[in-house]
Amino acid sequence: MRIAVDVMGGDHGPHVIVPGALEAARSLGIGLALVGQEAIVRAELAKHRHDGIDLAVVDAPDVVEMTDHAVSAARRKPKSSMAVALRMVKDGEAEAMVSAGHSGAVMATALMILGRVPGIERPALATVLPTLTGRVLVLDLGAVTDPRATHLVDFALMGSIYAHDVLGIAEPTVGLLSNGTEAGKGNQLVNEVHPLLVDLDGITFSGNIEGNDITQGVVDVVVTDGFTGNITLKVAEGVASLVTRALREEVTRTFPRKVAALMLRPAFDALRKRFDYRESGGAPLLGINGPAIVAHGRSDERAIASAIRVAHQFASGGTIDRFAGIAERRRAVVTGTAQ
Amino acid sequence: MRIAVDVMGGDHGPHVIVPGALEAARSLGIGLALVGQEAIVRAELAKHRHDGIDLAVVDAPDVVEMTDHAVSAARRKPKSSMAVALRMVKDGEAEAMVSAGHSGAVMATALMILGRVPGIERPALATVLPTLTGRVLVLDLGAVTDPRATHLVDFALMGSIYAHDVLGIAEPTVGLLSNGTEAGKGNQLVNEVHPLLVDLDGITFSGNIEGNDITQGVVDVVVTDGFTGNITLKVAEGVASLVTRALREEVTRTFPRKVAALMLRPAFDALRKRFDYRESGGAPLLGINGPAIVAHGRSDERAIASAIRVAHQFASGGTIDRFAGIAERRRAVVTGTAQ
Repeated sequence: MRIAVDVMGGDHGPHVIVPGALEAARSLGIGLALVGQEAIVRAELAKHRHDGIDLAVVDAPDVVEMTDHAVSAARRKPKSSMAVALRMVKDGEAEAMVSAGHSGAVMATALMILGRVPGIERPALATVLPTLTGRVLVLDLGAVTDPRATHLVDFALMGSIYAHDVLGIAEPTVGLLSNGTEAGKGNQLVNEVHPLLVDLDGITFSGNIEGNDITQGVVDVVVTDGFTGNITLKVAEGVASLVTRALREEVTRTFPRKVAALMLRPAFDALRKRFDYRESGGAPLLGINGPAIVAHGRSDERAIASAIRVAHQFASGGTIDRFAGIAERRRAVVTGTAQ
Repeated sequence: MRIAVDVMGGDHGPHVIVPGALEAARSLGIGLALVGQEAIVRAELAKHRHDGIDLAVVDAPDVVEMTDHAVSAARRKPKSSMAVALRMVKDGEAEAMVSAGHSGAVMATALMILGRVPGIERPALATVLPTLTGRVLVLDLGAVTDPRATHLVDFALMGSIYAHDVLGIAEPTVGLLSNGTEAGKGNQLVNEVHPLLVDLDGITFSGNIEGNDITQGVVDVVVTDGFTGNITLKVAEGVASLVTRALREEVTRTFPRKVAALMLRPAFDALRKRFDYRESGGAPLLGINGPAIVAHGRSDERAIASAIRVAHQFASGGTIDRFAGIAERRRAVVTGTAQ
């Protein structure tokens, strides 16, 4: 197994991506293709031991900036590091790709190069969030802002298969995000999707869930439209950051508090680790015809290594082959509806 | 000024609502109508000093349960405490009403009894959330799950006027919640609303904001559809609860940590107070033709007193009269569109 890593993405770039990738390759015993501007990649590589790792450096002269428009980046930068890495997956030279770059651009480029899994109309961006009891997969996070009901049926099936194969959850439960748990609560889209998910074969549907149920760990997979999913993720990040910043302010307000806070350092570190995006391993593009993982823009070495581990798992299990059966299951529930 | 208080609502009922109301009445120098099952109200009242307070006990034999359907409750329980309190506002016997009951039922009952402000098509439920720098008003929280663009124009104007009059913000800024800050980002609704808010007279529009901007205090008023707003609020509650529960777990994991945590008690208390819904004063129904405030179901005495203070402020400033000018401003921006 070889994983193609986009070395140019993320806030910290090659400086953290190269060592993170080397660490993951060593611990997983896999090969690496480090894709980026060759001189920069080689300069970074020279700083680290990499003996015994099956390693290729692949030149990609174009760089996608965070300010680029997603679709323009995909079209106008065919030799960007994300495009070259995705083409390696397409050509069978790598089994998966990882990028910490512009997630919209990775999605647009992946759609252009790898295309969709046959039968899946719209790919989704998913991510794993921490809960009180474990973790939860949430999708879509913004790939499809105005989906049709059938798209959410596909998201439910893809999320369920991914949670099983990659997160190792034997029988994942699926919740439909709404503004009330009762059937009949929700906006028009939710009210169209709900009965389809009730009838759908191949998922364990728990019905509608509310926003606070996500972090309670009530279900394993949360399905929503990309607009709501993006806002959910950002609100969660914003509130977690607000509470932890306020905590830091309060525990350092006086000298005695600072002393006590020092004694609680291990507790605060453990807390941070529990809500650390670096542990989550990045966001898979579900429905793209090849395993691709977007790592968080703020990723450090550990986050990159974690994303590569997830990509390895995603590519190992035949997950995408199983996505190919989704269209048929969807058609079984929409027969007779106006889809 | 007299405020009609629904004594039967909330998780804790008359036991906290009566003393909370008495405290607020004394500190504000206002009159009270305590509305509920008379024997229960009088029994609770007998436990507290209330000399010098202009006080009426108003019997309301029906009780709305949290499990009731909102519209059925409004129709089938015309003598519920919330209905009787709202009728007092309608009849000029009270200037505002406060309830800690079923927010959907309060909204439905208020619509039936007080009706809408002339020209406002859809009332919204709003609330105040804490931010890094202060607080933010968010609306709608679930009254209108599939609004039209023009409804969000009204929400922007009502939110702006309320933030000015009741929250005391001289020139409130308004943000439109979306999945990206650039104009052009967003779902179909956001893309229809954005240009209308750009052209709208009477608000300071800051453009689109993202989920994490809410808690950053980037704007004073956040406008969104009721589906997204409800999920935003619940996600925020869920994450705040998750982080604080995890904090408690971590700081009490070992004996030395417990000792240090005891020393940090004042810091943790200050933290809790910063994110305490009891400080926010409850959720106003904006667009209903009379001041009505829904206090949080978990309200204690302090939260009830705080909600009554907000109701007093809401009723004092002529805010609802100013809402009457909204339709004209909206029409000025939608002329020539298909609304």
